[in-house]
Parts: sequence; structure tokens; C-alpha cells
Amino acid sequence: MRVGDLRTPAALIDLDALERNVARMGATAAHLGVRLRPHVKTHKTLEGARIQVRGQFGGITVSTLAEAVFFAAGGFSDITYAVPVAPAKLAEAADLAGRLDRFNLLVDHSDAAAAVEACARERGVVLSVFLKVDCGYHRAGVDPEHAESAALAARLAASPHLDFRGILTHAGQSYHCRTADEIRAVAAHERDVMAAFAGRLRAAGVRVDEVSVGSTPTLAVAADLTGITEVRPGNYAFFDATQAAIGSCALADVAFSVLLTVIGRYPERRELLLDGGALALSKDPGPVHVDPACGYGIVCAAGGEPLPGWRVVSLSQEHGLARSAQPLPTGSFPIGSLLRIVPNHSCLAAALFERYAVVRGDLVVDEWCPARGW
Amino acid sequence: MRVGDLRTPAALIDLDALERNVARMGATAAHLGVRLRPHVKTHKTLEGARIQVRGQFGGITVSTLAEAVFFAAGGFSDITYAVPVAPAKLAEAADLAGRLDRFNLLVDHSDAAAAVEACARERGVVLSVFLKVDCGYHRAGVDPEHAESAALAARLAASPHLDFRGILTHAGQSYHCRTADEIRAVAAHERDVMAAFAGRLRAAGVRVDEVSVGSTPTLAVAADLTGITEVRPGNYAFFDATQAAIGSCALADVAFSVLLTVIGRYPERRELLLDGGALALSKDPGPVHVDPACGYGIVCAAGGEPLPGWRVVSLSQEHGLARSAQPLPTGSFPIGSLLRIVPNHSCLAAALFERYAVVRGDLVVDEWCPARGW
Repeated sequence: MRVGDLRTPAALIDLDALERNVARMGATAAHLGVRLRPHVKTHKTLEGARIQVRGQFGGITVSTLAEAVFFAAGGFSDITYAVPVAPAKLAEAADLAGRLDRFNLLVDHSDAAAAVEACARERGVVLSVFLKVDCGYHRAGVDPEHAESAALAARLAASPHLDFRGILTHAGQSYHCRTADEIRAVAAHERDVMAAFAGRLRAAGVRVDEVSVGSTPTLAVAADLTGITEVRPGNYAFFDATQAAIGSCALADVAFSVLLTVIGRYPERRELLLDGGALALSKDPGPVHVDPACGYGIVCAAGGEPLPGWRVVSLSQEHGLARSAQPLPTGSFPIGSLLRIVPNHSCLAAALFERYAVVRGDLVVDEWCPARGW
Repeated sequence: MRVGDLRTPAALIDLDALERNVARMGATAAHLGVRLRPHVKTHKTLEGARIQVRGQFGGITVSTLAEAVFFAAGGFSDITYAVPVAPAKLAEAADLAGRLDRFNLLVDHSDAAAAVEACARERGVVLSVFLKVDCGYHRAGVDPEHAESAALAARLAASPHLDFRGILTHAGQSYHCRTADEIRAVAAHERDVMAAFAGRLRAAGVRVDEVSVGSTPTLAVAADLTGITEVRPGNYAFFDATQAAIGSCALADVAFSVLLTVIGRYPERRELLLDGGALALSKDPGPVHVDPACGYGIVCAAGGEPLPGWRVVSLSQEHGLARSAQPLPTGSFPIGSLLRIVPNHSCLAAALFERYAVVRGDLVVDEWCPARGW
């Protein structure tokens, strides 16, 4: 089967690009002297994760408990669940921990610590925990400058029911950068905040085995990760239009795209109607801080070559509109022709599909099915 | 089971509100003297569609061929596929048409008309078609003022392989309105454009049985639909934060919400971390033209009462952040507590779930599973 035979909307994974991206990140981690525990949330597939851990120690990072269960069933035995766990999900998390070599939970609040500890005590198990640290993204995590944060780490480390692994952060603010230089500054800050906090904890007698950081943008530019033990990038497997815009990758590195069919043609407004909308591309606004007119993705020919001057200007539920800056040549892009869209945010677009067509060039070589739900 | 027992993120359908919304739209259609062919894309469930057609003639509207197949298997026999059909899907569409009393396709281009006609001729069947008209939304549809548009209608009507049903439009520009008065003007324009075009076609000898319009906002305010035969609203079954903001409904009418758990608490930034992000709520920007600070949904208590001053200020893949305008009272919203979020766009948020918990008050009374894919 060839790309042109797929029913649209179709999610395409360019396996050559994915393998190159994975090899490059592996080389980066080796060069920086850190373990690579890839995040698998971007694709949520066993096949993709198996490629990501090639040559690595085998640990992965997930974003939902459903993913953890899915990847555990698929043979992964060292998993970090990198979102603070809801108390109501602790029983299932503890069950899963009992079946794995290691299942790391995140904690960033004393009430959550108490809940995890109570669950471990009641079940007679030891649960692995990381203290989640806020290095400036201000999403989750404790403030490393607060005395309470060190006290919480000490409490986790002292509990007989917990195995305190260390500290963990995600510099999500790197996505708001405009240039590789700006990202470099975020990467250095992420490293410095974490290395310093680990140092203070150790000086206070708290054992800190792991100092875990990572976002795809910061890993794409990081030059020195002294003091860091582990990195957890995920989006790099696919990349997307946002990563290309902020300088994490080249457009040719992007391994994920959505194949759509032209179902309407309006030369007077230089627009094409596509058979995929917000439920095929997501409404992620994309890198508007770099390019306010970015629209909802990069328009490419069916073969993958970008089409200059084209933008996806609007998405409703099942309709997309692409607009050209230039007049449409007569006979171009007829109804029924195919386009590939590189979405703004591959994690969100991929999650809208029940299966991905895995391609090498024009050939469909496999089909991967992602985990869903929570 | 009660709402508090659900695993989060959970999609909730308030059945009482849904039934009230459906009854109100049925009364509106009866009062206006038009047939109601509800769109089912907002929920994509058999159960929801069966409620929507209660007391109506039984026809429905869908947005994908996969929905058409799903609802046909569920017993619906009169379906309009209200997105221009891709040529590559025509064979399957024709097969489906053969199993239904009526399956209406949309055409807005002479090339598409040729493709539908060729498919019908090759298979020896007659395919029902509507001419899609642009009444100002500028998404799909022919310009009713162009001579070519009338010529295309005449061509469809003259084909022995096609059953030309009439003309169809969607005034999606109503979503950009700020007030009910503005929507009223769009509704009147939608009606006038369609009635006038139908009149011109009939004067030219083209039989036009159906003049089909409809969006939830325009139906919520329309006072007179003279010249219109059929309406196709869909979002009214659920409504959402956008519809409430532009005046299509009251907040209490919204029948869809997403139940989330508080998994982080940051009083210094007056924020709560929630266990659902863009994959539970969608990144639809919402009614920013009415309220630039609307965020990603309306924050309500677990019981559904709105919490004044709260906004969902950011969404990443699996994290949501809600922020309060006021300081968090000590002990309020502890980790593990539940919140309900009314999303900006219920069609997009609902599509992210594999099942919906159907509730009456606090009681979970059913589970509905939607169609997916294309």
C-alpha cells in the first residue's frame, strides 16, 4: 500500500525521520553523559517506544496511568509517571508498581505525599517517588527556594514506605522561546536550578540518586548537563511545526503529518477545503509568538515537500481551510488531490487518531495503534 | 454509581439538561414550521441521536462517512452527510446509500458533481445530492449570486443518475457574533439568501424540494423561517461555554462537562493543577471575541455550580491549570477534590473521550460510546 491509497484523514509516521530523530537524541544524551528515559506520550505506541529505548537503559516516561498500564503490558518494566498522581488512582498505581521493576510516582505537595505514603503502608509495599520541582514553568512542582520544599524532600526520603529517587523537572517554558539562544538560556537555568537544589538536599543529608530534567527544546541545544543524571524528552521522536519554528529541529526532521484530501476549491479566495479539521489536527494555536500568522500547520504536497505561501487558516470540527498567498494556477489542487499537513503540536494531533500509518518514503510499511484514555 | 466515583478525566452528559435542550429545539422547529434534521456530530452516539429525533421525522445529519455508517447500523435510515464528499469515499457512500431510505451527499463544485454522477452511473444507482451554498461563512459552498451556481444546480437536477434534493447552508459566522441581536441578523440573512436562491432556481425551472439551513446560534434566536423547509442544528444538544457567551443558551442549559481531579495546589499563584489538559478539554480558544480572558472553560464545583472568578488559564497535553481571581481560602480545593469544567467547544472536547458518563443529578445512569474516525 502507498500513501496515496490511504483513507483520509490519515496520520503518517515517517519512520526514517523518526529513527534519525531517535538516534540523534541518543547521541546527545551519550555526549552529555546522562541517561535517556524517553517520554512516550507523543505517540503512545509500543512500537515507537521500542525504537526510542534502542541503545538506552530501557526506562520510559508516561503521562497517564492508562499509558503506564499499556506499556507495562507491552513489556516495559521501568516507568516514570510524570504527572502528579490523583489520590483516587493510587490503588491501581500501587498494583502496577508490584508488577514492575520500578514505577516512579511524582509528588509536589505534602498532602499528596501523605496519600502516597498511606497507600504504601496499607498495602505493605514501598512506592518509588520523585519530588517534582518547578524550574520556572509554573505548571507543577515545588519552589526549590522554599524551605518547605527541602523539608518535603527530607520527609519523602525518611519514610520507610517510600523509595525517594530524587528530583525531577520539566522546563516547559522553553516552548515560549523564539530562538535557539533563548532556549539555551532556559536549558542552563533548568540545569542550574536542579543541580543547586540537589546539592542543598545532599548537604542536608538527603540522598538524591536522580536529578531528572528534560524537554525536547532544551535537549536540542543543551551543551552541558553537569549535575544532571537523566533526561526525559518526548516530542523529539516526531517533532512538529512548533519545534521547527523555535529552532529545535528542521522541518525535514518532522516525522508526523496528517494526510488530507481536497474536497472543495475556491479560487476567488485562493482557498482549498480539506477533509480534516480540529478533530484531525487539533486547535493548538502553534508558534504564534514566532509567527503570528502560522495558522494550524504547515501545508505540504502529498510527498511531503512544503508548499511555500500556503497556510491552514481555519479549522472547524471536520473541515479545514488552506489558503495560498498566490493565486491558484488553473487546474492545480483538483478536488480529490492529497495534501500533507505538519501540525502545530504533534502530541495533540496524534492523539486524535486510533491508528497511524507508518511510512518509508511513499510506502506504507506498518500500522501502529496508540494507548488512549486515562 | 455517583459522579464522585468516576475515574477522571470523565465526560459527563447531564441527561435532564440534554432532554430539555432537545425539547426546546423541537418546539422551536414546530413553531417555525420547519422539519428538524438534527446534527449528531456533537456527541456521535446512538442514544443521543435517538433523543434528538423524538417527535421529529427521524432524519439526522452527520459530519463523517464513519458516522453515517455507525448511525445506519444503529437503525437510522435517513441521513445527510453534511461535508462535501471526497471522491475516494464515493464507492463506500454509494454502498451505504443502497442500504438506506435516503443518504444525501453534498456537492459544491462541478468536478465533485461529475465524480458523484460517474459513481452513480457506474453502479447503476441514483444518488441524492444537495447543492451546498455559502451564505457568508466562506468555508464551503457555492456563491448563490454566481451564474455558475445556478447552472450547477440545473445540472444536478437534470442528471438521471442524481436525485437533486435542494440547497443547503450553514451560517457558521453566527459563532463570531457578540450578542443575540447580531445572531438574529445572521439568521435573517441566512434565510433570505437561501429563500431568494431557491426562488431563482425555481423560476429557472429547477425543482427545489428542500431548503436546508441551520446552526445552533441562529436557531436559538430565529423568529421567522419563511421559505426554509429544514433545519440542522447540532450543538444545542450539549451547548457549551461559547454558546453561553454569545447568547444561544444559559450556562445552566449546558449538558456537557468534564470532571477533573485537583492534583496540585499552589496558593501563592492562586492556582490548582488538574488531571486533564488539552486531551480532555481541547485547545479551542473559546469566545475570545466576547471575553478575551475566557481561558479554556468555565470552572464549576463537582456538583455543577459555577465558581465565580475561576478560569482554566492553561492546558498542556495532560495538565490543566485553573486560577482564581481571589486568594485560595486555607483548606479549600484540597488535592483529590473534584471540579467540573464546561468546555469552550463541547463538540471538540466530547470527541476526546471513548465513553460518556450519563448523569441525572449526582447519579450515573448510563454510559454512551461515540462513533470515531472517518
